[in-house]
Amino acid sequence: MSEKSPSKHGEGFGRWFDWVIDAAEVYDYGRYPIKGMGIWRPYGFKIRELVLARLRELLNSTGHEEVLFPLLVTEDLLAKEAEHVKGFEDEVYWVTHGGLEELDVKLALRPTSEVAITYMEKLWYQSYRQLPKKLYQVVSIFRYETKATRPMIRLREVTTFKEAHTLHESFEDADRQVSEAVDVYSRFFDDLGIPYIVSKRPEWDKFPGALYTVAFDTLMPDGRALQIGTVHHLGQTFTRAFEVKIYRKDESVDFGWQTSYGVSDRVIASLIAIHGDDRGLVLPPRYAPIQVIVVPIPSSDEDETERVWRYAENVYERVSRESGFRVEIDLDREKRPAEKFYDYEIKGVPVRLEVGPREFREGSVTVFRRDLFKRSTVKLEDLVSTLQDVLADIDKRLKESAWRGFRSRIYRVSTLDEAKRHIEEKAGIVEVPWCGSDSCAFRMSDASGGKTLGTPLEVTDLEGLKCPICGRDAVTFMRLARTY
Amino acid sequence: MSEKSPSKHGEGFGRWFDWVIDAAEVYDYGRYPIKGMGIWRPYGFKIRELVLARLRELLNSTGHEEVLFPLLVTEDLLAKEAEHVKGFEDEVYWVTHGGLEELDVKLALRPTSEVAITYMEKLWYQSYRQLPKKLYQVVSIFRYETKATRPMIRLREVTTFKEAHTLHESFEDADRQVSEAVDVYSRFFDDLGIPYIVSKRPEWDKFPGALYTVAFDTLMPDGRALQIGTVHHLGQTFTRAFEVKIYRKDESVDFGWQTSYGVSDRVIASLIAIHGDDRGLVLPPRYAPIQVIVVPIPSSDEDETERVWRYAENVYERVSRESGFRVEIDLDREKRPAEKFYDYEIKGVPVRLEVGPREFREGSVTVFRRDLFKRSTVKLEDLVSTLQDVLADIDKRLKESAWRGFRSRIYRVSTLDEAKRHIEEKAGIVEVPWCGSDSCAFRMSDASGGKTLGTPLEVTDLEGLKCPICGRDAVTFMRLARTY
Repeated sequence: MSEKSPSKHGEGFGRWFDWVIDAAEVYDYGRYPIKGMGIWRPYGFKIRELVLARLRELLNSTGHEEVLFPLLVTEDLLAKEAEHVKGFEDEVYWVTHGGLEELDVKLALRPTSEVAITYMEKLWYQSYRQLPKKLYQVVSIFRYETKATRPMIRLREVTTFKEAHTLHESFEDADRQVSEAVDVYSRFFDDLGIPYIVSKRPEWDKFPGALYTVAFDTLMPDGRALQIGTVHHLGQTFTRAFEVKIYRKDESVDFGWQTSYGVSDRVIASLIAIHGDDRGLVLPPRYAPIQVIVVPIPSSDEDETERVWRYAENVYERVSRESGFRVEIDLDREKRPAEKFYDYEIKGVPVRLEVGPREFREGSVTVFRRDLFKRSTVKLEDLVSTLQDVLADIDKRLKESAWRGFRSRIYRVSTLDEAKRHIEEKAGIVEVPWCGSDSCAFRMSDASGGKTLGTPLEVTDLEGLKCPICGRDAVTFMRLARTY
Repeated sequence: MSEKSPSKHGEGFGRWFDWVIDAAEVYDYGRYPIKGMGIWRPYGFKIRELVLARLRELLNSTGHEEVLFPLLVTEDLLAKEAEHVKGFEDEVYWVTHGGLEELDVKLALRPTSEVAITYMEKLWYQSYRQLPKKLYQVVSIFRYETKATRPMIRLREVTTFKEAHTLHESFEDADRQVSEAVDVYSRFFDDLGIPYIVSKRPEWDKFPGALYTVAFDTLMPDGRALQIGTVHHLGQTFTRAFEVKIYRKDESVDFGWQTSYGVSDRVIASLIAIHGDDRGLVLPPRYAPIQVIVVPIPSSDEDETERVWRYAENVYERVSRESGFRVEIDLDREKRPAEKFYDYEIKGVPVRLEVGPREFREGSVTVFRRDLFKRSTVKLEDLVSTLQDVLADIDKRLKESAWRGFRSRIYRVSTLDEAKRHIEEKAGIVEVPWCGSDSCAFRMSDASGGKTLGTPLEVTDLEGLKCPICGRDAVTFMRLARTY
């Protein structure tokens, strides 16, 4: 047992997060000799796999196809679209040498893959009959961040970048694709129990080269907003630069239309941050590498201990066989039960089955719920159906609790003072009536101390609301929050 | 329908391979603007996933745990072990700039991960109780190859590098791990129907830093040997350099012992090259993204066509529901059946179900086998059980045929003339009695035109055999072949 863990709420969140990813053996950060690059350890890797499996399922079932593009991009390719390269040139890692030779052409570690993919799309797709085409890949991307890095949140190597790239015959079809992507990501975050708000990012904060960007933000326990997904309508920016011409159904020829959308390691950071508690991880059952752990508890009597051990193995086999859950048993005789409890609590295992002399004598099992930190005892014959109910209930409760906490930190305000107070004191996202002018938004940001997240996709209830900067009628709300 | 495809045998193999990976939409090579880097397209990506799934299953079930390490390695880390860096320094890509700034420390794109992993092992493992530890990852590695590159075979970005790294308490346990790795890879290749020979690589060809290297070689259709897997006993080379000290069971402290082993994209190249034929891919069912394709065949009568279409959908649903096979139906009405046949043949789909007016009237289905290029007709009620038999038989036949071809090209010879003739004319692997001296091996290589692959792990039947160079008694066989 180590010293007391930090509390995840308020200003201690960063320390708690660093503690939990290390103590639960999720992700090793800050010890590898390159800043901003960490290691997925076996337990963390399994969580990551479960999250990615769900994402792939959602993408594959909506006609997306997985591919794998080279990691390196030539300087020429990256420079092909002027606005795009301007957005990235300060933060690209450059490969300049192969062995002892200097390369003729500098190579960038991809910061994202629009240019590489558009370059190949020109070779692969010429006709509307091949469209829409939806490709995606899960890869490492690199950004030479000059800001302070944070594990899984602001990295120089983002190792879990799922980027989708789609090609369409028309503006409208790309627009429809943006909606599909928003829908896919919504289902993904819903399933993870990660609450979110969807905003159209302001012009000054859209993806370099995009017509517009829609983004998902969630809230970390310290009240800062974290961008966890973005969807871009790319228009014809890249297809023009790379001359991707499409024969359309009406026999005309036009450049294709594109979208791209991505999520990253931040999804897993959010899963950990939102559901975890001061004792460690709390994993929704679907994303728990171990869903049920069986821990036998020895008796002072050696013979009885043997019988308990056999009974525990029976329990384990029964649950394995009858439930389909990911169940494990910890038969280590050197470690005390309390130590095991502590370890599996840190690792966020949703249910622990405690099987000791009393349970053996009664033919029962003690079921411990990680989320509520509560025990109950059930008869062996009712165990599997109890587990089904308990795991379903954990999932439901974690989601409800996350959304409740999130909603309580979205504030609709009408004055800048309120905005500032909520951002500073209560920590969350404020929505301020906005006239639509850039300068008013910048002044809102300065006055409130929050960054502009953008505007809701659909707005109602504006009747009578005024922009608190200029006093004109509001046309929408501007959302503001302190951000990562 | 395109021009006639090249023949895969003999000198045309390279052209055939380039053709098939393009025509079957497996891997796009030679068009991306960086030499030696290709793209896994959706169909190829699925084959790759099926291959990796099997490999992960074998590794996970033998106690290996998947992790993910950073792609970049500092110059210092790489230089820490002298012999190792010497082996790689000429072929490492170097990152020297982040944005417009020059980096303080040059960063290498990993050519392999021994140093990164050993560096972290020192932080994670101190006691024999934590050992053996078996980690692996599936990642891109980079080598600035100056030789001619070839798709999936000699790349500058190897995108499917599965590297395992293990840590042990003793030399003996690492030795045992080498055997386990050889066993895992043997089962893996057996399952893929890729025949192989296992050799202990000669001293001058072992991995930089290893005590010894064991390698798997297969034969390409042109008779050249291709290294498809390697297993290294690393001794204490890296644990000494990084001071990974382990408390042993006997209470002494010693540096840990390591092994590492890897396979790459070459496994998929072999799967394609060995089973394919002049018409395209021939995939073993387990590795086929589509195992069964249903193709309805229209009638000249429109009403009957409608009935055939409905019947084909019935067939499709029945197979989906009852068999668990990956089955698809091609309902496209614009494409002629012959075109569809051609496409699925190139893609190596093991079984095609042809459903036309005759089949509809008879309540039957025509089953076409891609491997034998043969048709038979079965009653609908017998279809699922027939498919089970046919797919199992395809798997068996492909394996047998691959091994038969391979074995027929391993020649045990006693003179250098024979060795040279077999290597030049028949193209394969020769085994020459060898006295064990380096200089005799080099002379064998010069005289025969073959590269030294190494020696069998176990040798018998040496009675009376002499080294053809020096005339001394042979202690083993040296294997030679032209190689990739």
